[in-house]
Amino acid sequence: ADQEAMARAQTRQAQLTKPAGALGDLEALSVRLAGVFGTPTPHPRGVAVIVAAGDHGAALDGVSAYPPEVTPMMVMNFLADTPCGAGGAAVNAIARTVGARVYVMDAGVNADLPDHPQLHRHAVRRGTRNLRVTAAMTREETETLVLAGAALAQQAIADGADVLIPGEMGIGNTTPAAAITARLLNADPADVTGRGTGVDDRTLAHKVEVIEEALARTGTTDPLDVLAEFGGYEIAAMLGVMLQAAANRRAVILDGFVEGSAALVGVALAPHLREYLFPAGECAEIGHAAQLRHLGLTPMFRLGLRLGEGTGGVLAAPLLLSAAATLREMRTFEEAGVPT
Amino acid sequence: ADQEAMARAQTRQAQLTKPAGALGDLEALSVRLAGVFGTPTPHPRGVAVIVAAGDHGAALDGVSAYPPEVTPMMVMNFLADTPCGAGGAAVNAIARTVGARVYVMDAGVNADLPDHPQLHRHAVRRGTRNLRVTAAMTREETETLVLAGAALAQQAIADGADVLIPGEMGIGNTTPAAAITARLLNADPADVTGRGTGVDDRTLAHKVEVIEEALARTGTTDPLDVLAEFGGYEIAAMLGVMLQAAANRRAVILDGFVEGSAALVGVALAPHLREYLFPAGECAEIGHAAQLRHLGLTPMFRLGLRLGEGTGGVLAAPLLLSAAATLREMRTFEEAGVPT
Repeated sequence: ADQEAMARAQTRQAQLTKPAGALGDLEALSVRLAGVFGTPTPHPRGVAVIVAAGDHGAALDGVSAYPPEVTPMMVMNFLADTPCGAGGAAVNAIARTVGARVYVMDAGVNADLPDHPQLHRHAVRRGTRNLRVTAAMTREETETLVLAGAALAQQAIADGADVLIPGEMGIGNTTPAAAITARLLNADPADVTGRGTGVDDRTLAHKVEVIEEALARTGTTDPLDVLAEFGGYEIAAMLGVMLQAAANRRAVILDGFVEGSAALVGVALAPHLREYLFPAGECAEIGHAAQLRHLGLTPMFRLGLRLGEGTGGVLAAPLLLSAAATLREMRTFEEAGVPT
Repeated sequence: ADQEAMARAQTRQAQLTKPAGALGDLEALSVRLAGVFGTPTPHPRGVAVIVAAGDHGAALDGVSAYPPEVTPMMVMNFLADTPCGAGGAAVNAIARTVGARVYVMDAGVNADLPDHPQLHRHAVRRGTRNLRVTAAMTREETETLVLAGAALAQQAIADGADVLIPGEMGIGNTTPAAAITARLLNADPADVTGRGTGVDDRTLAHKVEVIEEALARTGTTDPLDVLAEFGGYEIAAMLGVMLQAAANRRAVILDGFVEGSAALVGVALAPHLREYLFPAGECAEIGHAAQLRHLGLTPMFRLGLRLGEGTGGVLAAPLLLSAAATLREMRTFEEAGVPT
């Protein structure tokens, strides 16, 4: 991030027509945005959410409240023609409301998805292998999906996106996310494994066992190897989105726990990525708070979301754009002729 | 609120393509909006923030970190021509970002404000009397300003507003707001009196004394009398905005502590008003949390805002519109053909 722009933004915040500090957390957010965009008056415009979908071998082990068939059906839901426009899922409804553009990627869904002009097809395999018994992805598959995510982020940027939101859909994907989080934070799996879409106590205990077996299977701490070992394809794609956004000096809004696991891999690879990440809300999944503590970042709200799809990120976009607007569009006390 | 629409909305939320409860607090918000708008698929469109400005006799007693001259200068700032559009204050910058319309009212500013086509003039006096020594407003002045707020709300509704945000500007106005809150919640003044724009410990102690003297001066608990005794004109105008919005079945986003004091008066007068109120964030002013507990309402975020102007309310508007959009625009599992 641009330290000089941040210093100038900090000075400017103190001169704007409001009591010092009265904009609360928006002030620090605005200064961070100045660093991302390299100017004390940042003007982010387009908002893009890239929803990557993938399936998980572990889902067949019974770690989710939903059957894996839901993943492809939700992909078609993201793309469906509805009376309100394209897409009938939560992320579509919220994106239409706040003016964000939705990109949908097949990162590795276990189905023959029909062709659709708005479906970006980057699957290399129909779902990951079961992380409990073997590496979920090969290193090559992992790198392919990271690059696919990066390429789609680049397209979104070319389409006008200044704020990028990686989102995901994948029945079973809080299992690899928890495994990644446990390994990279050196945490007890039970402390970072949550109920995902809503599993009961018995399934939760089984999910923790699956993660413990996966962690016992490999001791690697190399970030990309950790990602390859535990999966999944959509997490790799989201990592690519984040890295490409940061490389282009664009802001990334970080949604929930699965997105957080991609961010942990990203920050382990490239510590400066952290400066481009803006957590939306603290999601209800346990383990998310631990991720945010590790990243040293404060979320913007706490609405108890646990949906994924990038929904929380899209909801947070107007807050982030507003923070930038205060720095850019408010007059200073001197400009307004107000005594201080 | 429409109980049948709320029941149908609750049923619909459970059928939408997401795990039950995964949209967190947005689900309850969407159901409340169904009640306000009388349909299980509410479609609020226009957002209006009505910023009422007034001065306070108590400000001459030294209860604020800023001189009273700031009030008229900020009114002109709300109306100023800037390179970005009309208005150079925080509320203008944020309203432009989220697409809200700003209405500015002189509710009783202590200055000869120049005529401006966008300034709604409803002042009956140049600032309230000092609540420490006498009634801040007459009952007639109070009613006049309530009606003026209601009339401007009606104009905003005619202009297309479905979501109304009362906002305020008035140096010294957290003093009457704290007095109103202390009286209507039967609270110790020290527990509901905060630093406003940022007073030091000594000024805070003095501010509490002023409020204690005001409370000792009158024992009234009649809601409109409480408002008249302590002031101020902009609080009366905000009360009118809230009552008129609710009477028209429109949603009201409740910003900070001063707005909250108007809401306490409103709910004391008309308990059903509560059903139309949606608190934005918990503001940094102590006493706001006590107001929200009394109202039984949960804020949407906690960003530490303490600016007023309706800024928090405008920031929250996209969250509220998004909650309604999930109910209206998401497909059900059945519509999407997803197994449950």
